[in-house]
Amino acid sequence: MAELIWTDEAGIAADDRGLAYGDGLFETIRIRSGQATLAARHCQRMLSGASRLGIPLTQAELEAALDAACQRYQRPEDWVLKVILTRGSGGRGYQPPADCAPRLILSCHAMPPLPPPEGVVTAVSTIQLWVNPALAGLKSLARLEQVLAAERMPADCYEVLMTGPAGQLLEGSRSNLMLWLGDHWLTPAADTLAVAGVMRERLIDYLRDRGDEVREGPVSMSLLGSSETRGLVLMNSVVGVVPVRSLNSLQLPVPEQLATIDSESLFTEKRV
Amino acid sequence: MAELIWTDEAGIAADDRGLAYGDGLFETIRIRSGQATLAARHCQRMLSGASRLGIPLTQAELEAALDAACQRYQRPEDWVLKVILTRGSGGRGYQPPADCAPRLILSCHAMPPLPPPEGVVTAVSTIQLWVNPALAGLKSLARLEQVLAAERMPADCYEVLMTGPAGQLLEGSRSNLMLWLGDHWLTPAADTLAVAGVMRERLIDYLRDRGDEVREGPVSMSLLGSSETRGLVLMNSVVGVVPVRSLNSLQLPVPEQLATIDSESLFTEKRV
Repeated sequence: MAELIWTDEAGIAADDRGLAYGDGLFETIRIRSGQATLAARHCQRMLSGASRLGIPLTQAELEAALDAACQRYQRPEDWVLKVILTRGSGGRGYQPPADCAPRLILSCHAMPPLPPPEGVVTAVSTIQLWVNPALAGLKSLARLEQVLAAERMPADCYEVLMTGPAGQLLEGSRSNLMLWLGDHWLTPAADTLAVAGVMRERLIDYLRDRGDEVREGPVSMSLLGSSETRGLVLMNSVVGVVPVRSLNSLQLPVPEQLATIDSESLFTEKRV
Repeated sequence: MAELIWTDEAGIAADDRGLAYGDGLFETIRIRSGQATLAARHCQRMLSGASRLGIPLTQAELEAALDAACQRYQRPEDWVLKVILTRGSGGRGYQPPADCAPRLILSCHAMPPLPPPEGVVTAVSTIQLWVNPALAGLKSLARLEQVLAAERMPADCYEVLMTGPAGQLLEGSRSNLMLWLGDHWLTPAADTLAVAGVMRERLIDYLRDRGDEVREGPVSMSLLGSSETRGLVLMNSVVGVVPVRSLNSLQLPVPEQLATIDSESLFTEKRV
């Protein structure tokens, strides 16, 4: 059974493996009217990640933690719940203890400023992503590449986009990306990403539900400057979907087709 | 000025970026007769890593922390000091705060059992290392690859050796490695490694001082089975140098030339 820690009440044991080795996962969830948005998807990702890392966590205890957080922090406005799961204390060096006692660490945060709907300014990061297939997609606590990318982000940018060693475009430091190519959408496959976002998956389902074709595959940088490309969007589970109006010196179109994505409505989904 | 935290006294703030993102570094130092062994090398590595990550830390405050730890935990036997440096609390998401207040987190541990001098049993890990050049060599807190490798280590093994995406041999989960090829030694270059170990650097200097040739470059797996290879050693700053007597089903020689490395003497070095 995971130990619940409320960060407004207590600190963390100094021998927690989340601190020592990044040995854990996190979710950042938008809370609206006392309900966790996209709760089923967030829970599924954390449970699947915990299973990959061998950290015991049940759906019932994770859902109970989310419910307890929504009860505890009641706000009229939307807010952001951060849930950290760590493997807990101890073990001999890197080797996890046979019986670990995981921790769920819960904190309440204000919404960040929302980006302008007409689109945001971005740049390609000087920091690349080297995605180990054993960790691909996991929203783990080991996020130094994103920290360095965010630290080096030009001041006028909303986000930096990160490439892989082969030069292909993968994702933003805190968002996933999708290209609109007229007759279809293109986004990098989940198993090539550092973080496979909950809003990425939600947007794929939304677009397919309305009849759009969405392909998952490599996104080469050269596609961006080509006449095929009608637009580029970024997405995450706090701000929703936002068009990109420039990448470095490249101006990108922000056509009607992007504006038809109702970003706000993406947060509403029946808890499956 | 970094805040000193003694783990036998206090926990960690729940918003520490070391926990949130692996945003920090650590050193594991063998303490002998009240003195940190290889102290100058450990300090240099942490200071250089802090500089790469943009975490403010001075040599004077790090050395003072080591001295304070040696004063605090006086033992007749050798023990292990773990020093964690984090960027401290806060910031907006991945982006570090403009004025960070780093933490130095100090803990005292018993020595692990020493490996048998006649050599250890190892296996190639199923987990590969994907080393981002921006993070190469850094003993950062983001160590999930090593955790997964250690977790999957066969029960009869002392260590697992990890390969890069191209199949070349890089390092153990908690050690560096060096091949003895008769007329020279070969070890992977520091800028290709996940962790560039303090004992690796110490051993290179020791061997060169006694007139041996040490080359740094790619170590292909095929070298191990070749007749050129006279032996393989692992090293880290807690246990010193230890020969490998088998890797998976491959038996490796453990000749006299390896035994002439006086592992214990490597811990003695003038504080430069």
